[in-house]
Amino acid sequence: MLLATHADEAIRELIVDELREVECRFAAELASDLNCVNQLVTHVERYRGKMLRPMLVLATGLATSKPGAAAGGLTDDHRTVATVVEMVHMATLVHDDILDEADIRRRGHTVNRLNGNETAVMLGDYLISHSYHLCSSILSRPGVPLVSRTIADATNTVCEGELLQLANRNNWLLDAGTYFEIIRRKTASLCGTCCRVAAQLSGGDEQVVAHLYDYGENLGIAFQIVDDLLDLLGDQETVGKTLGRDLQKGKLTLPMIRFFESADDATRNAMLSLLESIEIDQDDEIFDNIGRKICEMLTAGDAIEYSRRAAEGLVASAKTKLNDLSPSPSVQLLNTMADAVLTRNS
Amino acid sequence: MLLATHADEAIRELIVDELREVECRFAAELASDLNCVNQLVTHVERYRGKMLRPMLVLATGLATSKPGAAAGGLTDDHRTVATVVEMVHMATLVHDDILDEADIRRRGHTVNRLNGNETAVMLGDYLISHSYHLCSSILSRPGVPLVSRTIADATNTVCEGELLQLANRNNWLLDAGTYFEIIRRKTASLCGTCCRVAAQLSGGDEQVVAHLYDYGENLGIAFQIVDDLLDLLGDQETVGKTLGRDLQKGKLTLPMIRFFESADDATRNAMLSLLESIEIDQDDEIFDNIGRKICEMLTAGDAIEYSRRAAEGLVASAKTKLNDLSPSPSVQLLNTMADAVLTRNS
Repeated sequence: MLLATHADEAIRELIVDELREVECRFAAELASDLNCVNQLVTHVERYRGKMLRPMLVLATGLATSKPGAAAGGLTDDHRTVATVVEMVHMATLVHDDILDEADIRRRGHTVNRLNGNETAVMLGDYLISHSYHLCSSILSRPGVPLVSRTIADATNTVCEGELLQLANRNNWLLDAGTYFEIIRRKTASLCGTCCRVAAQLSGGDEQVVAHLYDYGENLGIAFQIVDDLLDLLGDQETVGKTLGRDLQKGKLTLPMIRFFESADDATRNAMLSLLESIEIDQDDEIFDNIGRKICEMLTAGDAIEYSRRAAEGLVASAKTKLNDLSPSPSVQLLNTMADAVLTRNS
Repeated sequence: MLLATHADEAIRELIVDELREVECRFAAELASDLNCVNQLVTHVERYRGKMLRPMLVLATGLATSKPGAAAGGLTDDHRTVATVVEMVHMATLVHDDILDEADIRRRGHTVNRLNGNETAVMLGDYLISHSYHLCSSILSRPGVPLVSRTIADATNTVCEGELLQLANRNNWLLDAGTYFEIIRRKTASLCGTCCRVAAQLSGGDEQVVAHLYDYGENLGIAFQIVDDLLDLLGDQETVGKTLGRDLQKGKLTLPMIRFFESADDATRNAMLSLLESIEIDQDDEIFDNIGRKICEMLTAGDAIEYSRRAAEGLVASAKTKLNDLSPSPSVQLLNTMADAVLTRNS
């Protein structure tokens, strides 16, 4: 999806090859002498989705390299970082399944469903540990901050975002500022860091590195807004994971925040009653019925449209951050990837 | 406890001061701009126990330094590593509470009991992430492997040990070889790594580094055997955590493995019936009754004595690994710490 047909054919092929290399490194890093571990890792590989984060690393690496460099300027360190961020992301998926008590992920059973919460916790830890192990194989180079320190800084922030979200569970008064702070930390900081590190490894100057971080961060915020919209309005078959879980877990997202900001007292109270009638693990039919009513109320006003516009604004802003790069197929790819965030349906 | 009264007074004071410094660095690393995060971190600090792992780093650092060095040879990097390993250990405690569904830890409520499993998972991840972040602040030095790579290698192994243990849940046929492999990975590898890294940072030669690793690993295996014995036979008030959880979670430990190896068919079947009558979350009184019968059967034979002897043998072996170090108060401290593993009751 992210590798849309608009992309230059040569760069498409290059990225596809590089992503295959990332998959190989991913598997090699996680291989264990214990069968029970390898079986779990094989299961996790089925979670693999869009590979957004490795693509951000690779496309940024290409777009910020000096012209004429071998492999378009991609180095072994770019490939390692691309593998590391995919591993970090997989770890958060495995641990998110515990968070969300989700039953379905990418149309397969989740690890916690198959092997219990305990195994899911430890498998996530195994992925996190290996991501740092792999990252620590990148040697320091003069003038560039140690990659493993930068990545760990991002994962610190990701955890803060998750904890802030948990602290606001069932907070029906969540304001837009806190919502944006949550998703900036839990999702966008890693996307920004993918671009920052890739640009640093390509030898980009300070301003290019800062702009690429902003590109990734804005894209990441837009990505999460769209993700939250899909949880409300998507089609379970297409999205590939249980829908409506945000509501069931008391997570307010942008459409609902907008709804509460703009509704009159009577409408607000009607929505609050619906929200308070949701129970975790209630009968599917009852929950679907409540969910349908909530979606009807949201779509009656401007809540959905408003959220889409917010995502569009962020994507536009992300693209302006690419203005100081010379036009090239890889810069075009970064533009295309930003646009694709808005049109995705899974 | 580990700082027994046998230890030289000067070195006692030095270690106490250094441990206080570790606590300060621990708190400084984890400080967040988010209140909700700081509250959780404050709660976690109540878990702090014996600080075995930082002590292994500090005592080894002292014992392997060149004579006459400032601060006994302890460097800032030793203090950082001591903080890192304590943070890794705290993360495993927080995640173990999910594993073990434990209600009591160090006489306070566990994070998962207070804030739900989701918060406990994320808080553990926050600790892990910060441990690597802090570790990545240690610069590489010629001739010494990158510390963050060595630590990540150990945490990879810790996770494998936990996963191997989970894969053997309710395996009443668990053999001694697999049991030792589990505890070597989940507990002893980190203890060995504490000593390895500390000796490397002190400039110890290859043989000293290898011997110190073996010291830490043997001490760690003995420590876990004693831990498992305390779970069976300890006093809940003294140990400070829920007892009998290993049985409830289907974890076989050395006394039971020895019992099955040496029992006749009738006795073995009687024990199996008892084990199979245990249910997670069954009435306390019923469980205590089963637990009492199991302990009676174990103490009637040589299972407990055999396990204690195994721990004693490992402690003796650990101490022989110190033979190539010149006698000093810090080497004496390492000897005392090894002995203390056997006499601890919490």
